[in-house]
Amino acid sequence: MSADVVARLERKLPGRVVTDPEALEPLRRDRSGAVAPGRPLAVVFAESVGDVQAVCRTANETGTPLVTRGAGSGLAGGAIAGDGELVLSTERMTRILEISIPNQLAVVEPGLFNGDLNRQLAAHGLWWPPDPASKEFSTVGGNIAMNAGGLLCAKYGVTRESVLALKVVLADGSLLEVGHRTVKGVTGYDLCALMIGSEGTLGVIVEATLKVRPAVTGTVPTIGAYFDSIPDAAAASAAVTAAGLRPAIMELLDTYMLQTVGDYHGIDLISAGAAYLLIQTDGPGALDEAERILAEVTRVGGRAELTTDPETAASLVDVRRSGFIALEATGRAMLVEDVAVPRDRMPDMYARIAEISAKYGVDIPAPSHAGDGNLHPSFLFDGSSSEVPEYVWQAAEELFTAALELGGTLSGEHGIGTLKRRFLGAELGAEQYELQRRIKQVFDPKGILNPGKVFAA
Amino acid sequence: MSADVVARLERKLPGRVVTDPEALEPLRRDRSGAVAPGRPLAVVFAESVGDVQAVCRTANETGTPLVTRGAGSGLAGGAIAGDGELVLSTERMTRILEISIPNQLAVVEPGLFNGDLNRQLAAHGLWWPPDPASKEFSTVGGNIAMNAGGLLCAKYGVTRESVLALKVVLADGSLLEVGHRTVKGVTGYDLCALMIGSEGTLGVIVEATLKVRPAVTGTVPTIGAYFDSIPDAAAASAAVTAAGLRPAIMELLDTYMLQTVGDYHGIDLISAGAAYLLIQTDGPGALDEAERILAEVTRVGGRAELTTDPETAASLVDVRRSGFIALEATGRAMLVEDVAVPRDRMPDMYARIAEISAKYGVDIPAPSHAGDGNLHPSFLFDGSSSEVPEYVWQAAEELFTAALELGGTLSGEHGIGTLKRRFLGAELGAEQYELQRRIKQVFDPKGILNPGKVFAA
Ligand SMILES: Cc1cc2nc3c(=O)[nH]c(=O)nc-3n(C[C@H](O)[C@H](O)[C@H](O)COP(=O)(O)OP(=O)(O)OC[C@H]3O[C@@H](n4cnc5c(N)ncnc54)[C@H](O)[C@@H]3O)c2cc1C
Ligand SMILES: Cc1cc2nc3c(=O)[nH]c(=O)nc-3n(C[C@H](O)[C@H](O)[C@H](O)COP(=O)(O)OP(=O)(O)OC[C@H]3O[C@@H](n4cnc5c(N)ncnc54)[C@H](O)[C@@H]3O)c2cc1C
Repeated sequence: MSADVVARLERKLPGRVVTDPEALEPLRRDRSGAVAPGRPLAVVFAESVGDVQAVCRTANETGTPLVTRGAGSGLAGGAIAGDGELVLSTERMTRILEISIPNQLAVVEPGLFNGDLNRQLAAHGLWWPPDPASKEFSTVGGNIAMNAGGLLCAKYGVTRESVLALKVVLADGSLLEVGHRTVKGVTGYDLCALMIGSEGTLGVIVEATLKVRPAVTGTVPTIGAYFDSIPDAAAASAAVTAAGLRPAIMELLDTYMLQTVGDYHGIDLISAGAAYLLIQTDGPGALDEAERILAEVTRVGGRAELTTDPETAASLVDVRRSGFIALEATGRAMLVEDVAVPRDRMPDMYARIAEISAKYGVDIPAPSHAGDGNLHPSFLFDGSSSEVPEYVWQAAEELFTAALELGGTLSGEHGIGTLKRRFLGAELGAEQYELQRRIKQVFDPKGILNPGKVFAA
Repeated sequence: MSADVVARLERKLPGRVVTDPEALEPLRRDRSGAVAPGRPLAVVFAESVGDVQAVCRTANETGTPLVTRGAGSGLAGGAIAGDGELVLSTERMTRILEISIPNQLAVVEPGLFNGDLNRQLAAHGLWWPPDPASKEFSTVGGNIAMNAGGLLCAKYGVTRESVLALKVVLADGSLLEVGHRTVKGVTGYDLCALMIGSEGTLGVIVEATLKVRPAVTGTVPTIGAYFDSIPDAAAASAAVTAAGLRPAIMELLDTYMLQTVGDYHGIDLISAGAAYLLIQTDGPGALDEAERILAEVTRVGGRAELTTDPETAASLVDVRRSGFIALEATGRAMLVEDVAVPRDRMPDMYARIAEISAKYGVDIPAPSHAGDGNLHPSFLFDGSSSEVPEYVWQAAEELFTAALELGGTLSGEHGIGTLKRRFLGAELGAEQYELQRRIKQVFDPKGILNPGKVFAA
């Protein structure tokens, strides 16, 4: 049967089906450390909407599980594929079909990298706001499928706010067009929003109409502020928001992160303080806003400086952007988590992390998008990231419970995938969990699209 | 059976059930002109989530259609109730449960008026952006159920962008909590977005966690610009957007509107030009932005003036806000439409409206939210708004076709309700129409929630 599926696809899509074990091996993984058991049957490099439709039809008719893959940068094990599964890669679908300045939109294929898109847009004075730290190696389709966040969300919103319309191929191969080319549109249920963040379980995104904005121009003042303790830094970020100020970026590095990033770059970050806030403002009034933020941060005990020099600023931002890479470079195995809490509970969340770290004897550096209460507690352990020890999962579970108790969520931006599916029910409750599964069935009655992701298999 | 339902509700919810025909009569209508046949069985004035649950349970057990009603300001016939139907009114659920400055959110009951909420928020320096022209007489629950638009959407987004989480009572009386108290959250499908704009057909919104913003302070420069023709004004608004400028408000009044509003206020608006653009900028850099807009508007032939005097500005805005009331005051019957088109197609859309007006011999003033391409062509005729003559429907259908041909939509903000349900399939296509119905079935298997709205009965 499996051999038959591959043969059918090879006939239908010559030159687009690869079964070479070496090519398939990396498709068992994403960047989460999770590894799928076994190895997928084949990967199909779709080149058109029609190709995707053909793959879906074949998979559906034969009941073959289909895993859509963008760039595989996911941190939830959402794109991993194993035994008996087909991979549908969007790697060859990278065209920009339209950039419309008067309509402030761009129409693109799903496999285009976020960074590549934004370079093209910049040439027209435009900008697509979704800004995951992975923008240079993640796709627009993947960003949409995950409702990616990033550094700029408090001010510029998550990916959902920057998508107008989608073309989606459903499990049975039919093509669904959802959303609108217009700014407003309220005809029927908002299936475009439903698709965003659905992690490849409802359909394959084959084209996206993106809401773009005029590029933000002018000075981008940057503030770096050191604090004597992590809760102080968290409290400072909460104070900035409470004062009605809206930085574009407000990132927190805790003591462990300062040490790690410092080591990676060979610079001393730690002697200045135990925690660090990086803040940027932009747009008209940016400098004035930055000065008010500086006053606020200083008032609550930060030792802060403000720069408007682009190079100094870029290097400060880079410190934050390289955080994950610096952690990876330590060579330790890692489980990267992604809880979010209401912004005034950030100090509490850091306190809970410290408790959990002590209780389980595990290092948990936790860089955070402080401006929107999204933390990435990263559990470090010895061994391999693909085999997270049970005590680490226990510590992680305690983290999730703490986040929920503080009014927060399991996942601010990385999604559920395979990694967190066993905890999803705890957040949704049994009834909503079941409701969500029934929605999945409406789109994908045979359950061929990314089975075992988000929901338990 | 019907008598039995009412008796059961009266027992369960003493003092909250009204069957007085005079009280029921207005519930047959909203502001669209549509009138439901017959008269509803009763209206229940729910005072708590528990009340709503009791009503849903009873309706579901007895298979009684349930129409949720906010303030009845809808323009799509969504809240109208007739024979054999129950009305659930949110009129008594008007509490603000929480305002959190550090988390920039407010938790409210659904029956609260938008205007009342915003006055309370203003006292804390906060603001909820959804800004329908009906804000003084429409509810937050109704705004969410319709995904209401308004004047500020191009810059500040539609209602969807300003809702974090919802509590929703489903048809069977169960309570569903969707969305997050946090800025980010990606656990499972985005059922919060799915609820927004669902027009009372998926559940009853009983509590909303709203994303609020710091109130915009400072000067609000206002531009009034007259043009020799409607297409000129439409082209000017497109030029402003294309130049990367982001006015808070950009509204277009055509010749008929200028005449009507002028008559209503007893002022002469028409001698200055054939069309009018009202533009406001806000936030830091507002004056600079307004000056750039002024230059743009003048360049394309507008005779424009810029004012920073709040009183002059308010009266200019009022001219636009009173547009609908001025039309109503003419005493002519009216069908208010709500198409939206990509912004660069505004001139084409006005041209099509002129053609349709000539072809059917019907006056179609079309005020528009030009900044986001949302027009309200209002078909005037003699008779009663509750009996739209067939030739007017034909003209409207031609309007819808034109909007779709231009890449637009049937409804930018008013929704489908009963009024446009027969055209919904034309926009969605048969397949998506069916898919949407199946989603409805997941939430409401017996089909008791607002049957005959959005979808044909
Ligand atoms: C160093 C690093 C930093 C990161 N920083 C951030 C960050 O700041 N914010 C953030 O949100 N994430 C971040 N991520 C996570 C990841 O980059 C994002 O989730 C990204 O959106 C995934 O895109 P991708 O193209 O790599 O998708 P993949 O990993 O290939 O796939 C992710 C999921 O989306 C599905 N999918 C992909 N394409 C499609 C499609 N066309 N149609 C349907 N489903 C599809 C897959 O099935 C899978 O479930 C980071 C990752 C790394 C390694
Ligand atoms: C003069 C005038 C100007 C207007 N301007 C605008 C505008 O600028 N932009 C715009 O978008 N609209 C506008 N409208 C339309 C209308 O005001 C909006 O649709 C508004 O959101 C309806 O709110 P409501 O409380 O009156 O709802 P209702 O009319 O009572 O109900 C509308 C729909 O929502 C459902 N509903 C109401 N409450 C709930 C709830 N708690 N849970 C579930 N379903 C519910 C009802 O079942 C119905 O389907 C205007 C109307 C008028 C008369």
